[in-house]
Amino acid sequence: MGTDDSASPVFSIKHLSERIKTGELSPTELVESTLDRMKKLNPILNAFITIIEEDEVYRQAQIAEKEISLGKYRGPLHGIPFSIKDIIYVNGIVCTAGSKILADYVPKSTATVVQRVKGAGGILVGTNNLNEFASGITGINPFYGTSKNPWDNSRLSGGSSGGSAVGVSTGMALFSIGTDTGGSVRVPAALCGAVGLKPTFGRISMNNIFPLAPTLDHVGFITRSVWDAAAVMEYVAGRDASDRSSIYTNLPPYTRIMEGPCSKGLRVAVLKEYFCDNLHFEIADLFYRFVEFLHSINIKVIDSLTLQNTKKYYSSWKNIRLAEAANVHLKWLDSRADDYSPEVKEMLMQGKEISAVDYIQSLKAVSEIKSEILAIMSNQRIDALVVPSTIVAAPRISDSVVNVGNNVVVETRRALLQNTIVFNSTGLPAISIPIGLTKENMPVGVQIIGPPFREEIILSIAEMSEKLYPPMKDFERRRLNLLNL
Amino acid sequence: MGTDDSASPVFSIKHLSERIKTGELSPTELVESTLDRMKKLNPILNAFITIIEEDEVYRQAQIAEKEISLGKYRGPLHGIPFSIKDIIYVNGIVCTAGSKILADYVPKSTATVVQRVKGAGGILVGTNNLNEFASGITGINPFYGTSKNPWDNSRLSGGSSGGSAVGVSTGMALFSIGTDTGGSVRVPAALCGAVGLKPTFGRISMNNIFPLAPTLDHVGFITRSVWDAAAVMEYVAGRDASDRSSIYTNLPPYTRIMEGPCSKGLRVAVLKEYFCDNLHFEIADLFYRFVEFLHSINIKVIDSLTLQNTKKYYSSWKNIRLAEAANVHLKWLDSRADDYSPEVKEMLMQGKEISAVDYIQSLKAVSEIKSEILAIMSNQRIDALVVPSTIVAAPRISDSVVNVGNNVVVETRRALLQNTIVFNSTGLPAISIPIGLTKENMPVGVQIIGPPFREEIILSIAEMSEKLYPPMKDFERRRLNLLNL
Repeated sequence: MGTDDSASPVFSIKHLSERIKTGELSPTELVESTLDRMKKLNPILNAFITIIEEDEVYRQAQIAEKEISLGKYRGPLHGIPFSIKDIIYVNGIVCTAGSKILADYVPKSTATVVQRVKGAGGILVGTNNLNEFASGITGINPFYGTSKNPWDNSRLSGGSSGGSAVGVSTGMALFSIGTDTGGSVRVPAALCGAVGLKPTFGRISMNNIFPLAPTLDHVGFITRSVWDAAAVMEYVAGRDASDRSSIYTNLPPYTRIMEGPCSKGLRVAVLKEYFCDNLHFEIADLFYRFVEFLHSINIKVIDSLTLQNTKKYYSSWKNIRLAEAANVHLKWLDSRADDYSPEVKEMLMQGKEISAVDYIQSLKAVSEIKSEILAIMSNQRIDALVVPSTIVAAPRISDSVVNVGNNVVVETRRALLQNTIVFNSTGLPAISIPIGLTKENMPVGVQIIGPPFREEIILSIAEMSEKLYPPMKDFERRRLNLLNL
Repeated sequence: MGTDDSASPVFSIKHLSERIKTGELSPTELVESTLDRMKKLNPILNAFITIIEEDEVYRQAQIAEKEISLGKYRGPLHGIPFSIKDIIYVNGIVCTAGSKILADYVPKSTATVVQRVKGAGGILVGTNNLNEFASGITGINPFYGTSKNPWDNSRLSGGSSGGSAVGVSTGMALFSIGTDTGGSVRVPAALCGAVGLKPTFGRISMNNIFPLAPTLDHVGFITRSVWDAAAVMEYVAGRDASDRSSIYTNLPPYTRIMEGPCSKGLRVAVLKEYFCDNLHFEIADLFYRFVEFLHSINIKVIDSLTLQNTKKYYSSWKNIRLAEAANVHLKWLDSRADDYSPEVKEMLMQGKEISAVDYIQSLKAVSEIKSEILAIMSNQRIDALVVPSTIVAAPRISDSVVNVGNNVVVETRRALLQNTIVFNSTGLPAISIPIGLTKENMPVGVQIIGPPFREEIILSIAEMSEKLYPPMKDFERRRLNLLNL
């Protein structure tokens, strides 16, 4: 990959942090530009629920500035404005979880992920809008408004980390920490033209984050570049004693690994069965063009890998997600049922009806699905899988179904979730990166999936694509326009 | 502990294997004596479902004999006759699981535990009677008859590994491999005056064993002495690739560790809350006498440790056990419902009704229970816990309730399960050893529980007790009489 970064995003942690480190750019200037955008764009796009007081943000920026000027540079997140999905706790900052029930809830403790980013010098600028209790894939919220797609305000941002993707793709923050239970980081990243990384289950602490479905919940990041996602990973990943599902494993230096010649001998497989069902022809076109590109850069591409258990992908994920969510909300379902939106209440009621046997069968199905994928990857020496991130580009906010071409319509929710859920139930690391725009100039993403705890593989492939895939130059130019909508 | 074994059982793997090793005793002579007992006693006690053909047993004995005479001694299990609960698969040997449904089922593969014992030179003599599908704690089986307590044939053997305990305590086999989902190894061992070891969850492979409730199921061993249990552990424990819940951890040389001065500085806590509820006064008397003994041998005894979460012990275990069993039997419940006994069918139907939310809550409760126990053990530097194995001695076969004293009656099932279930849900290693006899000459056991994967601690305490506790000499003399009922 060398040092030729000409095609990589310039408004990114990577580039801005280099200028901050040298003193060429001050954190104060940087937060000023992001706050300006927030003032101008947020009233239209609805990306934030809580905006941190300007005085406080500037105070943090000045602290960072002073430290850096004294030679105490902490690394690439130092002085970088970031945001968090409004379901992640920060001591003293209201965390609504996008709900009426928690409208006034002020946590007394701070999520481990936020502690770590703040320890690395990141500056929190606000909390992002989301679906109520992260229950949804659209970005529509009946209590805090719908976060709108900056490429076309009549379209969905995707969700549930919708505000995160909107905020990052319009430069209101350089990165956002979200959560992903069925695609909630990767889907809005894909629809808004950002990078969305969902690391392996257990890689990132879920401590002090309101749960949706604990065995499916993952922390994830939305960033403007792949390197940025790797940089955030370096600071927030790793064992946390307060989350017992977080794993002790060595953390590779992600950003440095990506600088090496990682592509040598990589083998990537394209999954078609299930993942290309109902694929919109425009997405198909962009996806296969991207696969051609992979062929062209010395990656060995297995053009079609068939998996057996695909029929159970959706039902097993859905049973687990609904039952575990019902369990989380059990008390409020009794005491505050009418404070939920009708849609979320209905989902929770459905979850209560799921039997233990169906739940156990779903866990077993997931275990078999994971075994099958890992066995095939291992037997055929496959380093990563690629699939379209979503089967359609951002649907219109007003539409509950979406035309996938040839007058076939699919429920919006199903269309957006189809290709992401199975990497929640199996816990495999997955990243969505932009690969171009539809004719209506809506972003399209590809999802790259790796073996457990091998995020460096998918980060490397993603970064090569970002740098070397020809359409990315034009894409980046157009995305920069969003900074000045 | 030195070499003074005067009080340890003479008819045991430890003593017999020494004589086999030197050639003083031939495996053929040994199997002859066990087969003779089986012929004489099994028609009365009903300990076996399948008895291996005599010719085959003698053939195995001769092979062992020849190997040993050629200097190829494999270790203490070489030439030792053993049996398995009739729920463990051996290629070519009918495995009924105590059921009508599997009455003619002949497995085509062999459980890892049996492979390992055979590899160590053990000689399989038969499969032991059990409750239907291991669903019960009594040893009563409507299809294969009730296994009877050899100390009093009108009393329960306990279950579900009832035949295993009966066979071992009467010398029809030197040890038996059983399973324990709620106490099914420890309870019959206690009621029949044998040693019952249930190692840590994940320590022993469950491969090719018909499941009852997979997250609670453990393999366990019934033996005549503590050393014997340690010896079996050495051969069967450890990671097995075909059981993904089996754990990679170092296996200590259990039998050798026990020879060292393990008691130095040991701290043991007595649990009273919950575990002494409804304790029959005779059991209480024997139990507290045993605790006095522990005081006397330089073990630091914390006389009463209080736990908080005891109210959830039974309900959480029961929900998990019923739901997981219903899941295992789902297809037969549809297609062969009438081939179950009414009791088992009823339990399976109950399991189907459990909701996913209740199941998840039960798993959460178990996780909290385990955390509490481990935290207290760690904070107070406690090496092991002791409780009575059961709150009553073997009840009469005809009684469905049992008098625990002062005219208080308790359901037999609850009385037998009370003190064992929580070490299935938490997976902690536990051993039951005899500590004496009631006035009616029925055995009473104490259960010693250790931290996860520290079986050597409970084995050491158990062995010290077996050797040094004065009532054990008389107990052993009486138990030897059972060999010639």
